[in-house]
Formats: sequence, structure tokens, C-alpha cells
Amino acid sequence: MHMSKRRAAVAGASGYAGGEVLRLLLSHPDVEIGAVTAGSNAGERLGVLQPHLVPLADRVLEDTTPETLAGHDVVFLGLPHGQSAVIANALPEETVVIDCGADFRLTDSAAWEKFYGGEHAGSWPYGLPELDGQRDKLAHATRIAVPGCYPTVSTLALAPAVAAGIIDATGIVVVAASGTSGAGKAPKPHLLGSEVMGSASAYGVGGTHRHTPEIVQNLSGLTDAEVRLSFTPLLVPMPRGILATCSAPTTVTAEEAYATYEKAFADEPFVHLLPAGVWPQTKSVIGSNAIHVQVTVDEDAGRLVAVAAVDNLAKGTGGAAVQCMNLALGLDETAGLSTVGIAP
Amino acid sequence: MHMSKRRAAVAGASGYAGGEVLRLLLSHPDVEIGAVTAGSNAGERLGVLQPHLVPLADRVLEDTTPETLAGHDVVFLGLPHGQSAVIANALPEETVVIDCGADFRLTDSAAWEKFYGGEHAGSWPYGLPELDGQRDKLAHATRIAVPGCYPTVSTLALAPAVAAGIIDATGIVVVAASGTSGAGKAPKPHLLGSEVMGSASAYGVGGTHRHTPEIVQNLSGLTDAEVRLSFTPLLVPMPRGILATCSAPTTVTAEEAYATYEKAFADEPFVHLLPAGVWPQTKSVIGSNAIHVQVTVDEDAGRLVAVAAVDNLAKGTGGAAVQCMNLALGLDETAGLSTVGIAP
Amino acid sequence: MHMSKRRAAVAGASGYAGGEVLRLLLSHPDVEIGAVTAGSNAGERLGVLQPHLVPLADRVLEDTTPETLAGHDVVFLGLPHGQSAVIANALPEETVVIDCGADFRLTDSAAWEKFYGGEHAGSWPYGLPELDGQRDKLAHATRIAVPGCYPTVSTLALAPAVAAGIIDATGIVVVAASGTSGAGKAPKPHLLGSEVMGSASAYGVGGTHRHTPEIVQNLSGLTDAEVRLSFTPLLVPMPRGILATCSAPTTVTAEEAYATYEKAFADEPFVHLLPAGVWPQTKSVIGSNAIHVQVTVDEDAGRLVAVAAVDNLAKGTGGAAVQCMNLALGLDETAGLSTVGIAP
Amino acid sequence: MHMSKRRAAVAGASGYAGGEVLRLLLSHPDVEIGAVTAGSNAGERLGVLQPHLVPLADRVLEDTTPETLAGHDVVFLGLPHGQSAVIANALPEETVVIDCGADFRLTDSAAWEKFYGGEHAGSWPYGLPELDGQRDKLAHATRIAVPGCYPTVSTLALAPAVAAGIIDATGIVVVAASGTSGAGKAPKPHLLGSEVMGSASAYGVGGTHRHTPEIVQNLSGLTDAEVRLSFTPLLVPMPRGILATCSAPTTVTAEEAYATYEKAFADEPFVHLLPAGVWPQTKSVIGSNAIHVQVTVDEDAGRLVAVAAVDNLAKGTGGAAVQCMNLALGLDETAGLSTVGIAP
Repeated sequence: MHMSKRRAAVAGASGYAGGEVLRLLLSHPDVEIGAVTAGSNAGERLGVLQPHLVPLADRVLEDTTPETLAGHDVVFLGLPHGQSAVIANALPEETVVIDCGADFRLTDSAAWEKFYGGEHAGSWPYGLPELDGQRDKLAHATRIAVPGCYPTVSTLALAPAVAAGIIDATGIVVVAASGTSGAGKAPKPHLLGSEVMGSASAYGVGGTHRHTPEIVQNLSGLTDAEVRLSFTPLLVPMPRGILATCSAPTTVTAEEAYATYEKAFADEPFVHLLPAGVWPQTKSVIGSNAIHVQVTVDEDAGRLVAVAAVDNLAKGTGGAAVQCMNLALGLDETAGLSTVGIAP
Repeated sequence: MHMSKRRAAVAGASGYAGGEVLRLLLSHPDVEIGAVTAGSNAGERLGVLQPHLVPLADRVLEDTTPETLAGHDVVFLGLPHGQSAVIANALPEETVVIDCGADFRLTDSAAWEKFYGGEHAGSWPYGLPELDGQRDKLAHATRIAVPGCYPTVSTLALAPAVAAGIIDATGIVVVAASGTSGAGKAPKPHLLGSEVMGSASAYGVGGTHRHTPEIVQNLSGLTDAEVRLSFTPLLVPMPRGILATCSAPTTVTAEEAYATYEKAFADEPFVHLLPAGVWPQTKSVIGSNAIHVQVTVDEDAGRLVAVAAVDNLAKGTGGAAVQCMNLALGLDETAGLSTVGIAP
Repeated sequence: MHMSKRRAAVAGASGYAGGEVLRLLLSHPDVEIGAVTAGSNAGERLGVLQPHLVPLADRVLEDTTPETLAGHDVVFLGLPHGQSAVIANALPEETVVIDCGADFRLTDSAAWEKFYGGEHAGSWPYGLPELDGQRDKLAHATRIAVPGCYPTVSTLALAPAVAAGIIDATGIVVVAASGTSGAGKAPKPHLLGSEVMGSASAYGVGGTHRHTPEIVQNLSGLTDAEVRLSFTPLLVPMPRGILATCSAPTTVTAEEAYATYEKAFADEPFVHLLPAGVWPQTKSVIGSNAIHVQVTVDEDAGRLVAVAAVDNLAKGTGGAAVQCMNLALGLDETAGLSTVGIAP
Repeated sequence: MHMSKRRAAVAGASGYAGGEVLRLLLSHPDVEIGAVTAGSNAGERLGVLQPHLVPLADRVLEDTTPETLAGHDVVFLGLPHGQSAVIANALPEETVVIDCGADFRLTDSAAWEKFYGGEHAGSWPYGLPELDGQRDKLAHATRIAVPGCYPTVSTLALAPAVAAGIIDATGIVVVAASGTSGAGKAPKPHLLGSEVMGSASAYGVGGTHRHTPEIVQNLSGLTDAEVRLSFTPLLVPMPRGILATCSAPTTVTAEEAYATYEKAFADEPFVHLLPAGVWPQTKSVIGSNAIHVQVTVDEDAGRLVAVAAVDNLAKGTGGAAVQCMNLALGLDETAGLSTVGIAP
């Protein structure tokens, strides 16, 4: 028996997260695209704002309101910080609402206030199925917070080591090089092509980036030990992709570390532990929901080093959102998603 | 009744064309991947050479020989110039052989000898279904020559104007900016990242590029008038994509030109005439089989100007190969192909 | 006897043109930097806005007013369109004022109104010393309009052919691929790194770009024949540089064309005709005041093809401004300027 | 009295290091360029191989031999590993020989054999004048080993903290993102533009990169404490530049850290400590001999974080070589060098 298609709305369809959700839904076997909405871009055609989405070229963006988003099985929110709660509260409880923003990711109000400021809206089930026990919590959830892009790649790069207790979690260092789309589509001078091409830069240094407490929250859930993290994001000249270099003190060997990761990721459809000796490159995961991981141990330094690559807009945002939708709607977790990247 | 899947082999699977055919076949509903073969890379695993093709990571490349390629419904050839004929001749006549190389594209032996040198191997049905009458010739063909990337985009950008006789075809000028993957994966100093990033350059200037006679051949087939073409390829810093700027003398108005193009492409599944005023960008077509086109008339200059964008590896090579396979095998022409690009 | 240094002010010092003028003046042997001014960025330090200008890091931007700009031998204007006239009129006649903007480039009021709109402010001596007779006009001029970047490279690529009458100037086609800095530092969505990296696009197609009449004006000054130009600018993923591909019908041979160019540029300090067979790449001219040119003839197409590369911010704007200053102040034309680019 | 110019030869003039030395020497007030030599490229013209060096376009590359290099005040070597000793030994002791390669950088033969293999050629005075006491050792030295690019930026980013004893030097982590020119001009598949554009990757992970022992050697010279280093190099899509993110456990405050760095670099002409809150970007130092540094403390993580940017070919190689030459020849240390980068 052929199941009728589920109907999805996308709010914030003119942005990068919304555009990526639409791109993925266009090839999803079980979903049809309903309302596509925007803020200041309402009234414009997608053919002008997202010209890569050819089948939607004639769609006109509606206003983002509870009314335009009503009547869908699932609603994806790709909104500026702080705007998700109002919309979500106005939608029926049984509607699956998947928030690509940060509003509902943190469970700790103090952390929220320190890093984001303002009142904490609360927390929703966290959309990282690869975290221990999380897949079950997402099945049939109706409110889901999609993880941040840095937290996804950093957490998965370190989770096996933290969970297995083979690193000293008080000495974690993550340096993550990101493409520019993670900063969104709102034009700012330092994100101009003229500024970013040919340049690498650091920002949010010294533990100030908002994704820091989210990574700590994720890793702390895997261990009773204290987690201390030095996180530095870099901006590098590419539109998509994050490469996270993660290390922590260890006493195990490279072989033990690799075996730990192999076991941890054995059944994960989207986490790909590379053959020993092959190190991740972001190009391999562009457009896909895969995350590539490699791990070794530097015995001179006494540190485990794990490197992971992800497409920040796909598995880092839009792909994760679709993966969570699949779980929430009881579909095949991998439906409409792929592990095949676009290279070169 | 469910049809059993067709079996495809890919020769030259470690190169860019072969890798792209594999990427597309991995999501093709009607095809399974059989032999994957290479020259000097035989014996290596795809997980090392094409790490983006995760589902094929453990596949070991076999030698490219008639024996390894036997027993498939379709064989894709992504081989160096001059190597296709020997392989193709050794395969059964009923096997569909699709050559991504140049060996069988030109019908004119004199043009072959002038631009390629050596003996002309002959010509096969030309794999550009969008050319008038060509779709029928490809249905059930068993030998197909995939067009060059520049000819695909240049031909489609000009075909409506030439066919309708609204330009003076003796004054055609094409300047086409290409990403670097068109030059292949064989390492050469001028293709190093250090050389191409931050730089635009011209090459093959003055009518010397090998794709010149192929474009002339295509356009000449659409008109009784003489075709003269000035073609200049540019190398610009991006891995994929071609943007072709094409012009010729005209006396029609912009509206007449647009209407001519609209009519010509109305039923084409992969040619997307953009809304008036929106000009093509290669980013919109990356990874897709779409070609984006826009046209206008510069009345001061008295020239029609058409601009088209294509992914040189997708619709420009591997996607065209799959499209041709679909036609040759009697499948839906669009099976396994998409008009949705990856952006940003 | 050692001459005392001339004193230069730069208005618009937080923008790309102003920043480039400052970069060049910092190594100029005969000039010292006086006031540096800005509009909305007044009050900020250059160390924050132009961190590459280390020796000026502690300089605070003043407001752009006739008062702050008074008392200098030379004033460079890097202002938004339409703002130069008011400032210039308030400065003493003997102060050398060099406008990097478009306000005073066009002599034809009708062309101004068609392409820029609004009232035409008039025209100043045109700062392209390589044009026949122009060098003399710039010596001791006190008001100079720096050419647009596209006009500089397009004009010089075609000037020898037009002046010698070896092309049919009614059939000129120029397609010029530009880096993004030509569009300035004001943030706009289509100029974001996420949008431009990995993408080539066309804009201002069909004779609508504002630099079109400027190129026609320049070439028309070299011939009695009619000049008709089809000009298409492309945006390609690099921060600096323009590569212009220029062609027109001809009956001369490649050797005759090369000889014509060789003769025309023999005494030009900044125009470098490449050895036969070597084609320009923008990387070779980055940071320098050089323009690289090559020419050939496509006999099949019957067209002369000239390709030229320039750094749009250096010889295309700031370097040209300094070159003009040298002439106006009676200094060595090449002082503080170089033909050596930064590569790779 | 005007001193006659010193005469410099450059061996390996077709490579990136040699090309950069030549670029800098072309604007050096006290040096003239003598022999330019190469290996397999001997006989070619620089106008073809290094087209950005316009004033040297007609120079023909000679063979790299003791004879062609004889008769110069200074000889720069930009040769493949292992080739410098033979050449240097054949040159007179009083000739200043400056090796841009690795052969003479390490003092520890065991480290050499572990990381490079083969016999250790010995060590020369180390060309990093900013290291305590090193400037004096370079004055009038006649054999100088130019530091590696990663060691230059990593050492300077950490030296003040190590020397002042404000970090735990057993817990140093450096992740350094580099442009591609550091890998040289020899074509390899993974360095193709098609591979590197749009991609970030890690390599030499786990303490295996050859620059690791050199950084440890430099920092160990500044402290009696043990130095342990986890070093991970990244390849990011830009032609030039390195951004090093360096951290280690600390108990000082951000203000104390900044003050320590301010004092350490107060008299250094090329080390630029950025204003507090401004973080380095590689674009700001391209083409210059400047190194930009910023430092803070992440109190949650208990780590000092220092970030530094350098142009790997300039201060990272060729600029350092010229700076060392200046010291060795008794010239002004900054002659021919600049702190002004090319941006955007």
C-alpha cells in the first residue's frame, strides 16, 4: 500500500538553512513541499532568490505566520534567533516542528544567558540521533532542536573517546575551520567575497563562541567526568563545510583509539570512519549527510587527535533536520538523504 | 512488474568523468554498478581515490580491459584520448557504450586531424538530445559520443537563435569561463591550486581549442547559413562549472529573442530559461543536470547576447552520459538526474 | 638637494580604492600621508578597518570635509558616486584633486544621463596616460578623473588595433571577468563569499553596464571610424583582477597584429606585451601597476583577439591614481609603483 | 658616499621560494640580482615561468652549479631537500649562503633521522631574528638556515608565553591552516585546484609533520621546562598564508597575557600585536614581512590562546631570507621589506 505523502512547510525559505531543507525535500520520496515562507523577502519568487531550486522557481514566498504554516505534517523553521518560540507555540502540538535555530538547543538557562543573553525559551529534544539514546527520543517527537553545525561535527569527533573514557576530558581542544555559509545570508562586510577569498581568520576566540556550551553539554552527557573545552572557530575561504581538529590527553595507542571509534560508529548510517591513514577533507561530504572521521594518537604529545568533516548546511543543518523529520514521522531514517558527496 | 536493474560498468573510475558517472549512478533507480576499472590506479580502493563515494569505498579498481567490462548492459568510458576505440570494438555490438571522451564526436575527418592530430576513429551518435532530431537518434543507440563540456553549453546557448535564423551566424563570439575540473585529474603545474586560486587566465586563444570545431559542427547542423565562430576559453578559480557568454549580430529585439528561446526550450527537461532579468550563475547548477540560459539584445551594439551556465562534470559530461544511457536503454530520460543544484 | 615630500590626503580611506591608494603611498619615496577621512566610519582607527596597513594602524579617520582635506598638495577622492564635485569645488584650484570615482570621466552629457542618471557634473582630464596625447594633458593638471577598471583594461587591449585601423571597430566584443573588489566594500547579498566562491556569473549584460560608454569614448578618440561595442562583465571568484577578452573583425595576420601592439607599447612603462604564445593571467599583475597584454588573430573566425589582465584596484584604480599624481606633480611617472606582481 | 650594491644569486628560481626571493630583491635598494638558476627548468626564460617578475622577463635560467653561483655576495638556495649541502660546500666560506630548505634547520640528529630520514647534514645559524639572542648570531653569519613556515608562525605565537613561563609547555596544541603554496610547485594530484578549492583537509596528523621537531626545538630554547607539542597542519583553499591557532594551559588572565606579548614584541619591526579584540586574518599580511598576533585567555578552559598569521612565502620563507641577508651583510634589517600587506 502506498502511503500518502507528508506535507512540509519551510519558514525562512530564502535563507541558507531553509534553502537546504528545500533542496533535500525536493528529492525526498515521502514528502511534498507545502508553504514556503519568509520575512522581508515575502512576495518574491524562489526563482529569483534560490535559483538553484528549479522545480520551485515559480513559487512565491508567503509571510511567516502561524496561519501560512498551519495544515502541515512538519514545519521547518530557519528563523533568526529568538523568533522560533512564538511560531512554534501557535502551531498544534501534533505538528512536528523542527527548529534549525539555536533557541531550544541548550538545557542550561545560565549557559543560555551567558552566551546568548535574554530569556531562555527552554529546550527541545536534541536532534543528534547519533548520541547515545537520542535516536529513541526523537522517534515521534513533535518538537526538535537541530544541533549547531560546529557542535555536530565536534561532538561526533569526540563522542567515542569521551564515552569510552579514553581521553582526559578536561583537556579538550577543538579548532574548527568553517566555510562562510555558516554565518548566514545577511550581508556583513567581513563576509564579503573580497574579504574571505584568499584569507583565513579566527573569530570567537577564547571560549566566547555560542556553540561552546552546546558542545560541552553534548559531551558531558556521555561521561561523569568533568568536560573542559577550548574551542576556536576559523573562517576559511569556501562556501560550505567544516573541518574540526579535536584533541585531548590520552594514554591509549592509535590502534586502540581507532578500534574504539570503529565500534562506536559501526551501525551509524551517516558516520563514516575513513580507512586508516586517510584524513577527512570537506570536499568529500559536500551536499551529503555524511560525516567523515579519522582518529590517531600522537604519542610524543600524549594526545588523541580526531578530525571530522561535515557539510555545515547538510548534516550540519538541513540534512540533520530531514533526518530528524524521518525519525519523528516514523519514516526510514535515511530517506531522502545520501552519503555521497559532490567532488571535486 | 518490477524491472530488473540494468548493470553498468565504468572505465576510468578514478578520474573526474568516471567519478561523476558513479556519483550519479549511485542514486539511479534502475541501474546497479558493476565493474569499476582504471589504468595506472588499478588495484587501489575507491575509498582512497574517490572518498566522496562512500557506498563504494571498499570497491577495488580492476584493470580496464574488454574482459573486465564484459557482461554489462552499459559501459561508460572515461579514458584518455585515443583509447576508446580499441575497448569499444572489443565489446558486443548490443552493449551500450557511452564515451565521455572526444574520439567519436567529430564527423569531419579533416577537422579531427587539424585539431587532434592522428587518425580519425570515426563518429558515433552525438549525445546532445536537445539538438533537433537527436533525441530520436539516441533512443536505442548502442554507441554514443558524449559532447564536450564547452560545446554543450555553447551550442544550447546559441541553438535557438541559429535555428530561428535571428542572428548572423558568421559573427558568433563565445567566451566561456570554466572551472578547473574540465582539465582533468592529471597533475600539471598550471592547474595547481596555488596557480589557479585568485587568478583568471585565457588559453587556447585564437580558434585553437579542440572544442571549436565541435561547436561549429553542432550549429552548422541547424542552419544552411555559414557558421563562423570565435571561441575563447578562460580558466577561473572554481572546481566546477562553465559560464558561456555568446553573442552574434542581430536585428531582432530583446523580447523577440526571449520568445524564440522560450519556445525552443519549452519541452526540454534540463534547459531552464531564467526569468527575464535574471542572469545565470554556475553555482545554481552545480551537481545538477540543468543548464541555465538567459538572452537579451544589445541594441547599441546590434548583437544578441546569450549566457548559459552548466556543471561541466554533470550536464557537461557525466550527467549527459547518464541522460544518454536513459534514452538508449529506453528508460525515463530524467531517471537518476536532477535539475536541483547545490548552492551556496 | 633633497626635495621636501608632498603631502597627500585620502578621502574614503576605509574603502577599497582609498585603502589601495594608502597602500601605494606608504612606499612612495616623495609623498607623505596627511589626512585620512571617511564617511560613516569616521572616528574609527585604520588598524581596525584596514589592518593590512600596519604603519597607519593608529591613525583615526576624520570626517570627509573640505576643512579636513585642506592644506595638502594632492587629495585623492574615493567617494560614492555624486559626492566628488562638492568636495572638489571647495578645494583650492592649485590643489591636485584625483577622483577615483566616475563623476568626471564622461565628456558626453547624454551618455552620462543614460547610464548614470541625474545631472552631469562635467569632465576632468582623463587619467589614462597611455592614451595618445593624454600624458601631456595630465602633466600639471589639477583635476584628474581616474578611469574605471574595465575601461582601463579594455581600452589598452584594443587601443593599438583601433589606432592602427586594423580592426573593424563596429564589431568589437569585450567579455571581462572581474574579481569582486570592483564592486566595493558595501555589503550586498550577491557579493557574499558564500555566493561568489565556486561561482561565475554575468551581470550588466546587453550594453547596460556603466563602463560601456567610457570604453566607447576612449576608443572613439583614436579613430574617425564608428565604434560599436558589445560589453559583458562577469563576476568570478577572486578578490582582485580583471581579465578582458576583446575581439573584432580583422584581415591582418597574427604577426602583423603582434607587431602593431609591440610598437604601440614599446615605451610604456606599465604595459607589458607578453612573449608570443604566453597568455595573460590576473595573478601575475596582482598588487602591481602592470597590465599584461597578448594578441593574436583567429583566421577561421576572421577576428583579432586581444586579452589583457590588470589588478582592478592597482592599475585599475589606486595605482592609476598614483601614476596620475606623479605626472601632475612633476615626479617620475613610475615613482612608488611597480610592475612586479605577487604570485602565486 | 653611496655604497655599491651587493650581488645576489638565486638557485631554484623557478620555484615558489626562489620566485619570492626574486620578487623582494627587485625592490631592494642595496642588492642587484646576479645569476638565476634552476634544475630541470634551466634554459627557460623567467618571463614564461614567473610572468609576474616583469623586469626579469628576458632572463634565462642557468644550471644550478657552484660555477654559476660563484662571484656573488649572497646566494639564496631554494632547492629540493638534500641538495643544499653539496652546493654550499662548494661556495667560498665568505659568501653568505641562505638556505630556504630544511637541510640545516635541526640541531638534533636523532630528530632529523626520525622526521626526514637519511644522514643529517648538520645545522646552521637559525634565521629567526625574533628569537632571543638570535639576531646577534645572524649578524655577519655566512651560512643561514631559513626557518620553516609553520615553525616561524607557531614559534612567534608562543614564544612570549613560553619565555615568560606563563603557560604549561607540556600541553601545547597548534592547529595551523595553510594555503597551498607551502607544498611547492611540483604538481601532485591532491594539490590540483580542482581538489583544493572548496575544501579543507588535515594532513601530517598525529605528530608526523616534519616541522614538529623544529617548533619544539625553538620553544625548548626559551625555557628549562619540558615542551610537548601536538601539531596539526591543515590545507585550506588559498594560495598563500598560514593562520596558526596555538593554546596551552595557563593560570594568568587575558590582560596579563596581552601585556606579556606587548612587552615581548615592543621592538620587533615585523611582529605586529593587533589591538585587543582584533584577530588575525592572513589577508592582511599577504606579500608583506609582517606577522600579526593576538592573544587571550579562555578562563573556562584554562588555556591561553594565541593566533598568528603570516605569509608563508614572505615572512615564512623569502622575506625571512631577505631579512637574514640584511643582518648578515650589515644592512638595515628592514631594507627591501614591508609590513604592508595586499588586501583585499
